[in-house]
Amino acid sequence: MADRYFTGTDRVRYEGPDSDNPLAYRWYDPDRMVLGKRMADQLRIAVCYWHSFCWPGTDPFGSGTIDRPWMQPGDPVAMAEQKMAAAFELFETLGVPFYTFHDRDIAPELGSLRETQAAFARMTEAAQAHMERTGIKLLWGTANLFSHPRYMAGAATNPDPEVFACAATQVRDALEATHRLGGVNYVLWGGREGYDTLLNTDLTRELDQLGRFLTMVVEHKHRIGFPGMILIEPKPMEPTKHQYDHDVATVYGFLKRYGLEDEVRVNIEVNHATLAGHSFEHEVATALALGIFGSIDINRGDPQNGWDTDQFPNDANDLALPLARILEAGGFTTGGFNFDAKIRRQSVEPDDLLHAHVGGIDTLARALLSAEKLVKDGRLRRFVEDRYAGWTGPLGRDLMGGMDLASAADAGLAMDPKPRSGRQEMLENLVNRVV
Amino acid sequence: MADRYFTGTDRVRYEGPDSDNPLAYRWYDPDRMVLGKRMADQLRIAVCYWHSFCWPGTDPFGSGTIDRPWMQPGDPVAMAEQKMAAAFELFETLGVPFYTFHDRDIAPELGSLRETQAAFARMTEAAQAHMERTGIKLLWGTANLFSHPRYMAGAATNPDPEVFACAATQVRDALEATHRLGGVNYVLWGGREGYDTLLNTDLTRELDQLGRFLTMVVEHKHRIGFPGMILIEPKPMEPTKHQYDHDVATVYGFLKRYGLEDEVRVNIEVNHATLAGHSFEHEVATALALGIFGSIDINRGDPQNGWDTDQFPNDANDLALPLARILEAGGFTTGGFNFDAKIRRQSVEPDDLLHAHVGGIDTLARALLSAEKLVKDGRLRRFVEDRYAGWTGPLGRDLMGGMDLASAADAGLAMDPKPRSGRQEMLENLVNRVV
Amino acid sequence: MADRYFTGTDRVRYEGPDSDNPLAYRWYDPDRMVLGKRMADQLRIAVCYWHSFCWPGTDPFGSGTIDRPWMQPGDPVAMAEQKMAAAFELFETLGVPFYTFHDRDIAPELGSLRETQAAFARMTEAAQAHMERTGIKLLWGTANLFSHPRYMAGAATNPDPEVFACAATQVRDALEATHRLGGVNYVLWGGREGYDTLLNTDLTRELDQLGRFLTMVVEHKHRIGFPGMILIEPKPMEPTKHQYDHDVATVYGFLKRYGLEDEVRVNIEVNHATLAGHSFEHEVATALALGIFGSIDINRGDPQNGWDTDQFPNDANDLALPLARILEAGGFTTGGFNFDAKIRRQSVEPDDLLHAHVGGIDTLARALLSAEKLVKDGRLRRFVEDRYAGWTGPLGRDLMGGMDLASAADAGLAMDPKPRSGRQEMLENLVNRVV
Amino acid sequence: MADRYFTGTDRVRYEGPDSDNPLAYRWYDPDRMVLGKRMADQLRIAVCYWHSFCWPGTDPFGSGTIDRPWMQPGDPVAMAEQKMAAAFELFETLGVPFYTFHDRDIAPELGSLRETQAAFARMTEAAQAHMERTGIKLLWGTANLFSHPRYMAGAATNPDPEVFACAATQVRDALEATHRLGGVNYVLWGGREGYDTLLNTDLTRELDQLGRFLTMVVEHKHRIGFPGMILIEPKPMEPTKHQYDHDVATVYGFLKRYGLEDEVRVNIEVNHATLAGHSFEHEVATALALGIFGSIDINRGDPQNGWDTDQFPNDANDLALPLARILEAGGFTTGGFNFDAKIRRQSVEPDDLLHAHVGGIDTLARALLSAEKLVKDGRLRRFVEDRYAGWTGPLGRDLMGGMDLASAADAGLAMDPKPRSGRQEMLENLVNRVV
Ligand SMILES: [Co+2]
Ligand SMILES: [Co+2]
Ligand SMILES: [Co+2]
Ligand SMILES: [Co+2]
Ligand SMILES: [Co+2]
Ligand SMILES: [Co+2]
Ligand SMILES: [Co+2]
Ligand SMILES: [Co+2]
Repeated sequence: MADRYFTGTDRVRYEGPDSDNPLAYRWYDPDRMVLGKRMADQLRIAVCYWHSFCWPGTDPFGSGTIDRPWMQPGDPVAMAEQKMAAAFELFETLGVPFYTFHDRDIAPELGSLRETQAAFARMTEAAQAHMERTGIKLLWGTANLFSHPRYMAGAATNPDPEVFACAATQVRDALEATHRLGGVNYVLWGGREGYDTLLNTDLTRELDQLGRFLTMVVEHKHRIGFPGMILIEPKPMEPTKHQYDHDVATVYGFLKRYGLEDEVRVNIEVNHATLAGHSFEHEVATALALGIFGSIDINRGDPQNGWDTDQFPNDANDLALPLARILEAGGFTTGGFNFDAKIRRQSVEPDDLLHAHVGGIDTLARALLSAEKLVKDGRLRRFVEDRYAGWTGPLGRDLMGGMDLASAADAGLAMDPKPRSGRQEMLENLVNRVV
Repeated sequence: MADRYFTGTDRVRYEGPDSDNPLAYRWYDPDRMVLGKRMADQLRIAVCYWHSFCWPGTDPFGSGTIDRPWMQPGDPVAMAEQKMAAAFELFETLGVPFYTFHDRDIAPELGSLRETQAAFARMTEAAQAHMERTGIKLLWGTANLFSHPRYMAGAATNPDPEVFACAATQVRDALEATHRLGGVNYVLWGGREGYDTLLNTDLTRELDQLGRFLTMVVEHKHRIGFPGMILIEPKPMEPTKHQYDHDVATVYGFLKRYGLEDEVRVNIEVNHATLAGHSFEHEVATALALGIFGSIDINRGDPQNGWDTDQFPNDANDLALPLARILEAGGFTTGGFNFDAKIRRQSVEPDDLLHAHVGGIDTLARALLSAEKLVKDGRLRRFVEDRYAGWTGPLGRDLMGGMDLASAADAGLAMDPKPRSGRQEMLENLVNRVV
Repeated sequence: MADRYFTGTDRVRYEGPDSDNPLAYRWYDPDRMVLGKRMADQLRIAVCYWHSFCWPGTDPFGSGTIDRPWMQPGDPVAMAEQKMAAAFELFETLGVPFYTFHDRDIAPELGSLRETQAAFARMTEAAQAHMERTGIKLLWGTANLFSHPRYMAGAATNPDPEVFACAATQVRDALEATHRLGGVNYVLWGGREGYDTLLNTDLTRELDQLGRFLTMVVEHKHRIGFPGMILIEPKPMEPTKHQYDHDVATVYGFLKRYGLEDEVRVNIEVNHATLAGHSFEHEVATALALGIFGSIDINRGDPQNGWDTDQFPNDANDLALPLARILEAGGFTTGGFNFDAKIRRQSVEPDDLLHAHVGGIDTLARALLSAEKLVKDGRLRRFVEDRYAGWTGPLGRDLMGGMDLASAADAGLAMDPKPRSGRQEMLENLVNRVV
Repeated sequence: MADRYFTGTDRVRYEGPDSDNPLAYRWYDPDRMVLGKRMADQLRIAVCYWHSFCWPGTDPFGSGTIDRPWMQPGDPVAMAEQKMAAAFELFETLGVPFYTFHDRDIAPELGSLRETQAAFARMTEAAQAHMERTGIKLLWGTANLFSHPRYMAGAATNPDPEVFACAATQVRDALEATHRLGGVNYVLWGGREGYDTLLNTDLTRELDQLGRFLTMVVEHKHRIGFPGMILIEPKPMEPTKHQYDHDVATVYGFLKRYGLEDEVRVNIEVNHATLAGHSFEHEVATALALGIFGSIDINRGDPQNGWDTDQFPNDANDLALPLARILEAGGFTTGGFNFDAKIRRQSVEPDDLLHAHVGGIDTLARALLSAEKLVKDGRLRRFVEDRYAGWTGPLGRDLMGGMDLASAADAGLAMDPKPRSGRQEMLENLVNRVV
């Protein structure tokens, strides 16, 4: 393993549940068939650049602890190339089919937008070469519209239209790069599309700016023939006090307002769901019910801390039910599981990145196998169908089919509906018995 | 003051800021002109039956502490009449123009839906007589679709269509009673329209049931010629784990989904806003931006406790900015401020209800006067206009007017937008200087 | 199974992991040896009266849904006897070794304290007979000092010393009844020992009253020769805004203040831990570190709802690490796992109580088996020992052994400590591999 | 105003409530007498280095927006001198009596601890010169034991004793510098004294290390004759998952455990109080009740965001009651109000710092005047005394004076305490009428 950055292993392999090798998969067996597809094709796992190769371990009270060779002083593009080599080394070591990036993850921010654009073009070519060499594909690309000071008051929602135009530059370039690299989705995360205080904010205008921007992106996608899906990633707050893409239901209303509900779907992040006061399963179920389910940023938050901790998932039980919902609905189309997760600030060894991903991937695989059992078992689904059976009878059909309030009210007078147990505890036990 | 229930005073009167009479208004001066309307007409204050006359002081760990004559054993309708007499005594003592009720607040739940209906009809007549006698009007009526065990799994969203029909009976009757009493709005609060667990819930179906129910209500409103507004009251959770009318933005998406956004507006409750993780001002601003602002349930929550404490408002500073937004948008049309607020469980004296309302009403009046100053001062509004001035220039107009992403992106390349302070602290100071 | 209240089965038995019988244990195998003790003796499971036999399914927005024969009109003591028969039927059906009660759970509140006392004495005798008949033992007794209106402003912390005296009556009687019934602990939960508003509260005085009360209880325990442990159950809020027994660390400070740290331990409730912003494991670890670990009220809260939902536990993974800590520390002495958990309001069938307890008990058993594996594996413990190994070397011993700040500071100047990974992800994976 | 960094004004002066000058005080009138002391001596206001001169406007998603001359490349000590000149310019412009610093605020972190120590010594001398020149005093000094990577796993609680020794170096030096500069307090904030995961943490050992460290600091304080007070600043979490100095009550228990309760007091930060789930007033009241009230870090959090936003205070109503408590208890002794507050990331103009402090200082002054009125009015205090009057009667004195539980219980049997309203709403109105 000469010249390797991740020294623990050159390939994480499936060794089964009894393996005691910490850098082997015990559950992730890519070719195993799960409900008619390879496990790898059901999960569509991606490793992301953002947290794994760009974050130096800073937090609001401390400087960087994670010291990578590509974070040293030196030519920024050379550093970006070194970073990319290490990134693809990790992707290959893990054996995952996909990766994801922001424009500023793979290429440096330079003195001017034009120089930065050139560096991004060059790094896009480098990525293409790595992809051809390794066969690793791009789940999605995106543009970082939040780190540069020019975006401090928003990108599309900035009070200054010049900033909107700069955002357009970045998104046009990132979308076209994603297209060129064969990406299957393009994501927008509006970390600065919100407000710090309502005192200086014109909410109506900012919503319209955001609607306009998204419309331009959708039109451009069609113009260039990008076949992928446009995704919005909801998050309720952080870095701003309030973000407009608050949660799935809010994004749905926004899309309906600007007539984009058939063009855009959501990229749900687990930790953003919990920051919004929802369970992850709720956000998945809501997106499926509203017809805008797209992809997932898989991670976990800390139930006691009120910020985006972006920890690696490690509890398969938490993910089995959301996964069963996704499977029942037919599984991912363009989406997948992207590890928008970061190691802890004290995990300073390169191999900590390996451990983190191995644990996360196995958690997904184990959850998938549990979800498969739930779907095959079918008792949960049948319980729910039975519970609502009255709605397929005459009264239910009439009520949904056009009966007016007065007739329903008269019918109601004659009724004395029987209480029926919701059976929550029995169902919770059932899940534990199946998974 | 013979035979009075509230003995502290027979009329709370305006005595000005220097009054030391705890049962006088220091700020609420109904005839004072504020931005072209009487203060009373700007605030449109309503006292509500629910917390003030029906709640006996129970909490999840304790039995009732508040012992009213109408809560004794006896004929339920006679008790309801006694309650109504006390309620109108309070309304008159406070000198408020409006009240609000649930069907089950003013009339008892009896053995069958039919008997209950008859009692409700009789109490509606009694209310009409009190209203004629006193001149007090009805801000809105509503139906209690959450207390009866039949609604334990939802009303419109119940798995059993018979329960939907019972809900139709109640809402038809309550809507028609509201119409008969000249109510200016009709409210729906979906306390059980949500889920306790996703395990037994068909989310898609329940949303469709709720959309269907609301559509039926809107059609019936038109059929009977009710001129008032239909309002939905958002609340994120409690009593259920998750309620479908989560917050203003969620309700907006729901209305768009079922084509009801021109027919229905929101009744925003302060404590529900904070339970949803929003500031009250945010919810008001969002409703105004989305064109669905209706009315307000004024109260306050406890910032450290995670349930609906429904305390009386007592900080005028907290309310000045939301009120200024409402005034800038033209003020209430059909809506008003309804005191969906309850005294504390230890406030066992009848006159505690007087103190609570006097404090709450004065808080609103004082906030209104502050809001008037902010609107007249105009500096906040002008700061915001200036901040977005670029959007009325050539670039801004082009971007909003149809420029495509490629052109915007090319324009962006040439730009180097200047950082401009958001001035949050200066604006916060400005508010303190004005109010 | 004639005359049974719980009809699903007359005995829940261990059938192993492959059983598909929903009313069998798959993990709870009482006689299985776990780290040198029978599983039943490690877990010391108790069923509690409070939620399972007394709560009618009310919530702040709805009336009772759960209709038990002993909740009907009739002679209160006869009803209490019927309730007790059903309770012991459940205890026997589940095959648990312990139960717990409040004075007002097993005997009714009557018109006067004296009559209530007599009823409680009679029901204590009835309990004694049931216990002799069944062999089921009492984990702890307690007094309900929160439901009666006299306690609305606190029991020991009431502004009125007469209420303190009433609380003394109840606690004296409940403690002596617990002693008579062979209870192994006596618990105090201070649900009203807190404040609704600081405006009317003398914090210093109330803390001293609470310290005095607890001192009196401890002295009485010794006087009557009660060999059990006195336990305080921390809870941060609800029903009051703030409770003095906020969390384990707060209770520790309180005990130290009144010199009671060797006499009193804590009864940690999972849902109270999370309401206080702590993980359950944190509260267990803190109590063990401070030497005041006593017993556990096992349940779970809802991560998205801010009140005490007291749900049955159903995730063994969540409980494995806290259990491993308890085992490493030697296991329970007087304590045990008490199901302070309630079925959901929609779980209206008697057998829902069976399902809930079977699921909860199996969750504990499964967690115990995982904890056993973690303890036997030993890698976690050794990792921690290694991590702190420097503290057993010369520098560590000197620093802890009395070196002064100046000497330590001079030593520090010469040092350049090496960064060492905290290995969080690897350890999380290790736990998943072991359990 | 040649060569000034803050160009808005060279001196903020008191101009009274009617002033429309945004850079004048409307309430802060240093020489005005308030309850027997100058306003300046009651408030003892300090400006802090940390947020105002060192923070570049970074957040977890964005790079610095605030570009100060002393943040440029160049000789670090020269930069520190420029920063100090700007800092004292601000202190003088505001006319505040105090400032506060961390060791790493005033002097740079250099390549080795020894070089850093020398730079700190040199900057301490520079500070002394500025203090003599301006008459501005030091409220407290402290050491930054959280930014350097060596502290990633804690300072005193680090698994590596070498890191403990480095912390000793910093604290010894910072304490002695504070002594030399005539500081009236020395503060410890344990931002890394906590854990990221319990998996790798020995809680018992870490608490003992922290107790040992604090004991060494207290001994050294006496050895060098430092007359000031040692203060601990509670914070529940952030940057770690859990910090040992969680809140006031937890710190009290910790001090009792290590016998330090007479040597150490608390520095309460408003935003840390709310992060811990407490009101600021609660933390102040608790510290006063437990005898460990010291000083205050004045700021405010965002009620909807779960991290330490450290905003400037701007609501005098929120602070009036805590201030009234402090005044009733005799006011500050060594403590004061330190502005541990930062401007928003978008407030990029130097003068935004002026606006922020002017608003914050006026908020404190206005709150002080309200608190003075509450104290002079006396009705709140008398209400509370009356409410507990029974405790000065015979029963109350006996209960507190040694009556045993059995006697109290017998007394209780004869009692039927009368319900008495807690009068919360009336008291809230009273506060609004007085302030
Ligand atoms: Co994400
Ligand atoms: Co995230
Ligand atoms: Co309401
Ligand atoms: Co409410
Ligand atoms: Co409990
Ligand atoms: Co509980
Ligand atoms: Co601070
Ligand atoms: Co802070």
